[in-house]
Amino acid sequence: MNIGIVGLGLIGGSLGLDLRSQGHQVLGFSRRESTCERAIARGVVDDASVNPGLLAATEVVFICTPLAAIVPTVEQIIPHLSPSTVLTDVGSVKAPVVEAVAPLWPNFVGGHPMAGKTDSGIEAAQLNLFALKPYVLTPVATTPPQAVRTVETIALQLRASVYRCRPDEHDRAVSWISHLPVMVSAGLIASCMSETNPDVLALAQQLASSGFRDTSRVGGGNPELGLMMARYNRQELLRALQHYRHHLEALTHYIEQEDWTTLEQKLKSTQLARPQFVQELTLD
Amino acid sequence: MNIGIVGLGLIGGSLGLDLRSQGHQVLGFSRRESTCERAIARGVVDDASVNPGLLAATEVVFICTPLAAIVPTVEQIIPHLSPSTVLTDVGSVKAPVVEAVAPLWPNFVGGHPMAGKTDSGIEAAQLNLFALKPYVLTPVATTPPQAVRTVETIALQLRASVYRCRPDEHDRAVSWISHLPVMVSAGLIASCMSETNPDVLALAQQLASSGFRDTSRVGGGNPELGLMMARYNRQELLRALQHYRHHLEALTHYIEQEDWTTLEQKLKSTQLARPQFVQELTLD
Repeated sequence: MNIGIVGLGLIGGSLGLDLRSQGHQVLGFSRRESTCERAIARGVVDDASVNPGLLAATEVVFICTPLAAIVPTVEQIIPHLSPSTVLTDVGSVKAPVVEAVAPLWPNFVGGHPMAGKTDSGIEAAQLNLFALKPYVLTPVATTPPQAVRTVETIALQLRASVYRCRPDEHDRAVSWISHLPVMVSAGLIASCMSETNPDVLALAQQLASSGFRDTSRVGGGNPELGLMMARYNRQELLRALQHYRHHLEALTHYIEQEDWTTLEQKLKSTQLARPQFVQELTLD
Repeated sequence: MNIGIVGLGLIGGSLGLDLRSQGHQVLGFSRRESTCERAIARGVVDDASVNPGLLAATEVVFICTPLAAIVPTVEQIIPHLSPSTVLTDVGSVKAPVVEAVAPLWPNFVGGHPMAGKTDSGIEAAQLNLFALKPYVLTPVATTPPQAVRTVETIALQLRASVYRCRPDEHDRAVSWISHLPVMVSAGLIASCMSETNPDVLALAQQLASSGFRDTSRVGGGNPELGLMMARYNRQELLRALQHYRHHLEALTHYIEQEDWTTLEQKLKSTQLARPQFVQELTLD
C-alpha cells in the first residue's frame, strides 16, 4: 500500500518505521526540507517532500501534526489527493477534529494511537511504539465503513489494541484518565512551590521521594501538551475538574470533621477501584 | 551496642537485619509470641520476647509500631528501661509524638526514616532498606545532644541521609510531599469512578495508561496509611489541601476564561519546579 505521513515527529516517524517494516511504501510530507532529508536518512520514509503533490499516489494518509495544525494541514493537502484516499489523524482530542475535517473529506476517520514517550521529534522515532497500546478510532454516521476497516487493518498491523467509539465518548474518557491527571498533578507542584518558609521548602525538596515523584510526573511534563489538551478538550476537562473539586472537598470535609470512618471507607474504595484502570507492575 | 526493637514489622525487621549485620546485639519485643519466634527464625533479632523486661539491658530502643501505638507502647516499656537508654521512634508524623513522649522520657529523639515499600510485615523485611534514603531527626530544646548523636550515628550506619529539623517543620514538609499527594491522588480515582455513563467508564478503564497509573498510585495505596497521615498530621494536611484547592481553582479559572497565556506560564513553572523536588529517573 502507498501510505502518506504528514508531520514527521515522534508519532509520524514511528509510524513510518513500522509501516515500512510491514512492506508498505511510505511517503512523507513536511513543511521543512531539513525534516524531509532527516526522515529519508533515518529510513522513516521511502521518499519525502515539501511538495504535497507527492501525496497524489497515496491510498491512506496519516496526519501526524500537532492538534492546532490538523485542519490547516488537511486544507492544504486535499487538493492533491485522489478522492478515494482515506485520511486519518492521530490527535489526542477527537470531537473538534472530526467535526472540522469530516465535512472537508468524507473519507476521513478520526484516530488516536495512545502511545507516547518523554522524548519528541523524529530522532525519538522507534519501531513498535504502538504495539500493545490502545488505538482509538472514532467514526461517525457519515464515515464510510470501508475507510474505518482500512485504518483498523493498519492499526492491527502495528499490533495496537483497537477500540471504536464516538468522538465525544473518546474525549470524555481521556479527560478522566489523561487530561484531568495533568491538571491535578500540576496543581500539586504549584501548591508545594507556594510554601513561604524557605527552610520547610528546602526540606520538602530534600524529602520528596517516590510518592511525590509519581504524583507530580504528568504535571511537570511538556507544557505545550497540557495546553493543547485544555484548549481542545476544554468542556470535558472543565466538567472533570468540577467533579474532581467535589470529591476533593468531600475528602477535606471528612478530615475537618475527623470523620475517620468515612475517610477510611473512601480510601478503601479508591484502593479497590484503581486496579480496574491499571494493572500494577511491581518492580521490587 | 545493645539495641532494642519494639514492633517487628517491615521497618523494625529491616532495622534488625541491618543492625545485626553491623555487629550490634538486637533484642526484639512484640506483643505476639508468634512474631517473636518468626523474628528469631528470620535472623532479624538475636533474641525476642513478649516480656518487656528483655529491654532492660538496651542502650537504644527503636519504637517501630504504627503511629497510634507509639505512646501506649512507650508507657508500657519505660518502667523496664535504664534511665540512660535512648528512646527513638520511626513514626511518619513527629509533632504529636514528640509532644507526648518527650515529657515521659527525657532521653527521647523523634525520628522518621523515609523508607518504605508496598509490602509490609516482617516477611518483607530486607537489608539496606534505609540506604540512600532520608532519615529525619526532630530534636527539641530539651533533647540531650548526646541522645541525638547516638541515634544519628546509627542512622549513618544504615547509610541513610540524615536531616535535623523541628517536629513542626518535618510535619509541614511531609504534608506537602507525602500526605497531600495521597489525598490529591485518591480524589482523582474517586472522580473517575463517578462517571455515570458505563460505556465511557469502561473506555476510560481500557485507555488508562502510564499518566493515570503514576498519578493514581498513592491514592490507591494502603488506606490505613492514608488514614494515619490524616489523623496525626490533620492541621498541616488541611492547610496543604486549602492551598491546593486555591491553585486548582486558578488552573480551572484560566481554562474557563480561555486564558491560554497564563495557563502556559503556569504549566511552564511547574515543569521548571519539579526537578527541584525529584531527580527524574528515565527508564526508556
